[in-house]
Amino acid sequence: MSTITYADIVSARERIAPYAIKTPVLVSSELDGTLGGRIFFKCENLQRTGSFKFRGATNALSSLSPEKRARGVLAHSSGNHGQALAEGAQLFGIPAYIVVPEDAPAVKIEAIKAYGGEVIPCAPNQRSREETAAGVGKRTGAVMIDSHDDPHVIAGQGTAALELIEEAGPLDMILVPVGGGGLISGTAIAAHGASPGTEVIGCEPAGADDAYRSLAEGRRITNFTPRTIADGLRTPLGELTFSIIEERIETIVRVEDEETIGAIRLILEGLKVVIEPSAAVAVAPLLSGSLPIEGKRVGVILSGGNIGAEALTRLLDPDNRRHQHPAG
Amino acid sequence: MSTITYADIVSARERIAPYAIKTPVLVSSELDGTLGGRIFFKCENLQRTGSFKFRGATNALSSLSPEKRARGVLAHSSGNHGQALAEGAQLFGIPAYIVVPEDAPAVKIEAIKAYGGEVIPCAPNQRSREETAAGVGKRTGAVMIDSHDDPHVIAGQGTAALELIEEAGPLDMILVPVGGGGLISGTAIAAHGASPGTEVIGCEPAGADDAYRSLAEGRRITNFTPRTIADGLRTPLGELTFSIIEERIETIVRVEDEETIGAIRLILEGLKVVIEPSAAVAVAPLLSGSLPIEGKRVGVILSGGNIGAEALTRLLDPDNRRHQHPAG
Repeated sequence: MSTITYADIVSARERIAPYAIKTPVLVSSELDGTLGGRIFFKCENLQRTGSFKFRGATNALSSLSPEKRARGVLAHSSGNHGQALAEGAQLFGIPAYIVVPEDAPAVKIEAIKAYGGEVIPCAPNQRSREETAAGVGKRTGAVMIDSHDDPHVIAGQGTAALELIEEAGPLDMILVPVGGGGLISGTAIAAHGASPGTEVIGCEPAGADDAYRSLAEGRRITNFTPRTIADGLRTPLGELTFSIIEERIETIVRVEDEETIGAIRLILEGLKVVIEPSAAVAVAPLLSGSLPIEGKRVGVILSGGNIGAEALTRLLDPDNRRHQHPAG
Repeated sequence: MSTITYADIVSARERIAPYAIKTPVLVSSELDGTLGGRIFFKCENLQRTGSFKFRGATNALSSLSPEKRARGVLAHSSGNHGQALAEGAQLFGIPAYIVVPEDAPAVKIEAIKAYGGEVIPCAPNQRSREETAAGVGKRTGAVMIDSHDDPHVIAGQGTAALELIEEAGPLDMILVPVGGGGLISGTAIAAHGASPGTEVIGCEPAGADDAYRSLAEGRRITNFTPRTIADGLRTPLGELTFSIIEERIETIVRVEDEETIGAIRLILEGLKVVIEPSAAVAVAPLLSGSLPIEGKRVGVILSGGNIGAEALTRLLDPDNRRHQHPAG
């Protein structure tokens, strides 16, 4: 599977169906009135492990041969991919080794452990991550599953848009956040097959706008220092995801952190669900008026809900907002 | 319909199907691990207007003759019933007159207006409420729809449990909050029909434990001063709901406000959804260990999610908690 097709997403959906939740699509006439479009929110924050990452991880797991899979899987991620892969591996009854920088928040490490993952600490730099992961791979024979630059992962992520379009009907556009690019790549392929008139629009923090700049400059930018509260979107694009984005995506919207916080509040009050900052980045353009949504049928993938009550309280409290740090 | 039957709930479900959302039932293996039972959360916080009240209001509206209905409907409520009735009436294209005490929070008045309701202020006491409502009824011919002591409202509220049992299968118990008693009455009748082995357990704030005391004393207690953050549960039982509760309910659990706040946090982090304090009262007993849920299949009706971001932030912030007032 070097080129990912619509058929790959359709079969991914069948493959992950026994494990993944078919998440609800929420609508609100009150929100529609405020925003001016007809908005369909696909609630991947209610997905198993709290994010869409479970789809890609499970599709990758399902696609391994039983012999290979039995040796376990491996990833370096302190975030949603690590939790998703750990839970998926647990359901398959195999080990998951998750390499995590030693300065990662304790709550994230605990979450990976709660899903049965084996946490392997490394120094907080790219070289240590890679060396540690390679060492674990050599020692255990576990297969590395990349968080985004993997065709099976991308096909799995596309299943969310497939379900969204099936439930909502044809859409004028779908908004998705862009980090490593796995979700937008899968969404673009799914939308092209299921609802060809749909434009897929990427949403990125202004402080980590590598996809925007990569598209503008026609080359993949990987060397940048992200400054954003959207901790899931600090990753650069991969080679595979950049090639798909270059081929299929025309518009990337950039969002300020203050707009992201406003979007968390909007969804909390309007839909009664919790989204993490990385998900809110794809909601913010609805509020800022930067997209022509008036009278349009718009899908939004609410990509995840992994934020603790304290972090949420801090973000939403106007008195504390100025004290917050951009680190996750 | 003086005695409400299981058949009434089944037909209520058909009647409200074009209007109400079939809300998702959420589960979490992580939460189950923490709590020790297998818990099925019926998300009425994701219902239209943010609470189960939309079910009862819409069933009552649907049950009126077209001639009667055309004159509009009337309620006194500053809370979820007022919003639900306004939205239901709007869908039927008829006026809703909602009598609201003049000291009600502006946000609640705005919500009723946003759903197309006509807000009619009254002095903040029972006599003014009743006189104002009677005056509106005389002037407009609108039909009064009580928030809980109405057979059609009770049958409508029972549809949430019906859907829950259909999706989750037979349950050992179902936990529901008790305010005016409409939800627990409908739930008890639905459960008895759909899953006869299920015990329905009422959950009440310790500071508004009139149902607990009414059951214990064998008479309906209506004269008390509620002291609780659970603003939806400050209402006394009605005559009809008390008679159903006396016949069908054995256990009412009392919950402290601090436990309720802990339950909001648990659901926020574990399920990624927002519940209001009145809903959290039915979650709190899972945390306190006051019920034998170990290894049991337990349903919980998350009754509503109508709490603003600021009120939520205030509740969850440990520094501010001591400053909060019990008023809604």
